Amino acid sequence: MRYYIGVDIGGMSIKAGVVDDNGKIIKKKSCVTRANESYETIVGDIYGLCKSVTEEAGLKKEEITAVGMGSPGTVNSKEGIITFSGNLNFRNVNIVEEFRKHWDIETVVNNDANCAALGEARFGAEKNVTDAVFVTLGTGIGTGFIIDGKIFEGRRGEGAEGGHICIKMGGERCTCGERGCWEAYASATALLRQTERAMKKNPESVMNKIAEEKGCIDGTVPFEAYKQGDKTAEKVIKTYVKYIATGLVTLINIFRPQTVSIGGGVSNAGDWFIKMIERQTKRHVFGGKINKMPKIVKAVLGNDAGIVGAAAPVMK
Amino acid sequence: MRYYIGVDIGGMSIKAGVVDDNGKIIKKKSCVTRANESYETIVGDIYGLCKSVTEEAGLKKEEITAVGMGSPGTVNSKEGIITFSGNLNFRNVNIVEEFRKHWDIETVVNNDANCAALGEARFGAEKNVTDAVFVTLGTGIGTGFIIDGKIFEGRRGEGAEGGHICIKMGGERCTCGERGCWEAYASATALLRQTERAMKKNPESVMNKIAEEKGCIDGTVPFEAYKQGDKTAEKVIKTYVKYIATGLVTLINIFRPQTVSIGGGVSNAGDWFIKMIERQTKRHVFGGKINKMPKIVKAVLGNDAGIVGAAAPVMK
Repeated sequence: MRYYIGVDIGGMSIKAGVVDDNGKIIKKKSCVTRANESYETIVGDIYGLCKSVTEEAGLKKEEITAVGMGSPGTVNSKEGIITFSGNLNFRNVNIVEEFRKHWDIETVVNNDANCAALGEARFGAEKNVTDAVFVTLGTGIGTGFIIDGKIFEGRRGEGAEGGHICIKMGGERCTCGERGCWEAYASATALLRQTERAMKKNPESVMNKIAEEKGCIDGTVPFEAYKQGDKTAEKVIKTYVKYIATGLVTLINIFRPQTVSIGGGVSNAGDWFIKMIERQTKRHVFGGKINKMPKIVKAVLGNDAGIVGAAAPVMK
Repeated sequence: MRYYIGVDIGGMSIKAGVVDDNGKIIKKKSCVTRANESYETIVGDIYGLCKSVTEEAGLKKEEITAVGMGSPGTVNSKEGIITFSGNLNFRNVNIVEEFRKHWDIETVVNNDANCAALGEARFGAEKNVTDAVFVTLGTGIGTGFIIDGKIFEGRRGEGAEGGHICIKMGGERCTCGERGCWEAYASATALLRQTERAMKKNPESVMNKIAEEKGCIDGTVPFEAYKQGDKTAEKVIKTYVKYIATGLVTLINIFRPQTVSIGGGVSNAGDWFIKMIERQTKRHVFGGKINKMPKIVKAVLGNDAGIVGAAAPVMK
């Protein structure tokens, strides 16, 4: 068995874990991201975390085969450079070079969403998938593409911005400034917006009662109301599923993956919700009758996807 | 100098050419496609064409390094299989195996649009581009994607259906049965439809006069009228450019290529038209201020792209 370290660099915290060949986390640890410090300091923290998690896993440094990191933002993985990361205040930082000043070991860095995609493809609901699309429906929409077992990040790591494919020209304004982006319709934030609108327009909807009891409107409101048979909630969810499926159809028509994994809070709504997305997508994919339809599955690694996925590119 | 044969298999005719390392066609020949015959007969015809074009180029068979073929439809290039080609009535034909019964030489087959994409990337307006998107605006929209110097065809050759990305949910009906496909807005056929509508609504438009003189409405009508200062034609073209750009933005956000080549009859409208597409696209690409915008260029190989592109994958 070989061991790797996966590092998930977030704006709030840095997590590191020792991962084995089966994608199992042996030991993990985290520390606060000192986001306002220099990148040298942050890389020093990352090294400290790696060293201590190795010890706590009962391993010597020599027993670690390689280190993989996942970072938010634009990452040029070929050159080991984080080109731009808003959360970390990094601009053109060669994090691999910097890390290897501390520990001379094979090290790679990839975009964190791409890492999660690779983690899910290798060790997720379906194992060892070589061609996969990973979609996180959260505040925005994150996408990751796996082609032939490898991360596809667009040239210089600047691509794979699947949240900003346009599904409705001239439609809703997106946070990126454009109109009609998939993210503006199918993110969890978008669902909240759609829910609020429906509640205002339909004061009799059970959603209003649920939200009042909760003291707030969150992503669970339409799902709970739908289970209680609320017609307005049903409409909200069915429309939301259509938005999700429309973006998926575009991505499937281009990539034709074996699996599409759906992550993010919304994906926890239940199997029926994933099935509903699958049915809607299947109906509209190009050549659906001739070509095989990808399986649509729930992402299962959750918070661990960051660590496991960061390590996945260096696994032999 | 090494020599290759590129074969462009079309529903109407088969073209074969001897191509050198620089992508130059030394000699080309064609024959009618006997589309109703068995695939064995057609492959026999292809072999005959290859043999005779080699002789006419003044070369011996031993001087040919490899043969590359381009076929319409779904092609599984890894296995050398044409999975499905409507025009040729081919279903799961291992054309490579069949061809090598005649001539035992390195042989590959790829989808013809993908071949054209690779031809343009290597030998087109910009040379030796490794990451490129190729878009043909014709009856439909054909797309080809080059990643890291290689054709990306989606798994099992079933992807890269860029014409059927959805740009306007619930919008115009596409020939594929769906609504809102890019093809339904940005193909040459779509431009004709948009032109006719505008002519009917604006009988005073110069377009009506031009069409009457021509005796028909073709793709040049709005362009000619625009040059004569017709406001309706200007609106038609500007809207059409927006449709083209919307799809390009999606593809660029995913692939972030170095170049986007535009082919098909519409691309002959002039440099100003390509520039107009470029400006519109640039304005809407994600992270346009940070990331480098791809060059948008006119495809230049024209009819030869099929032959040169078919040979390109086997060039060393």
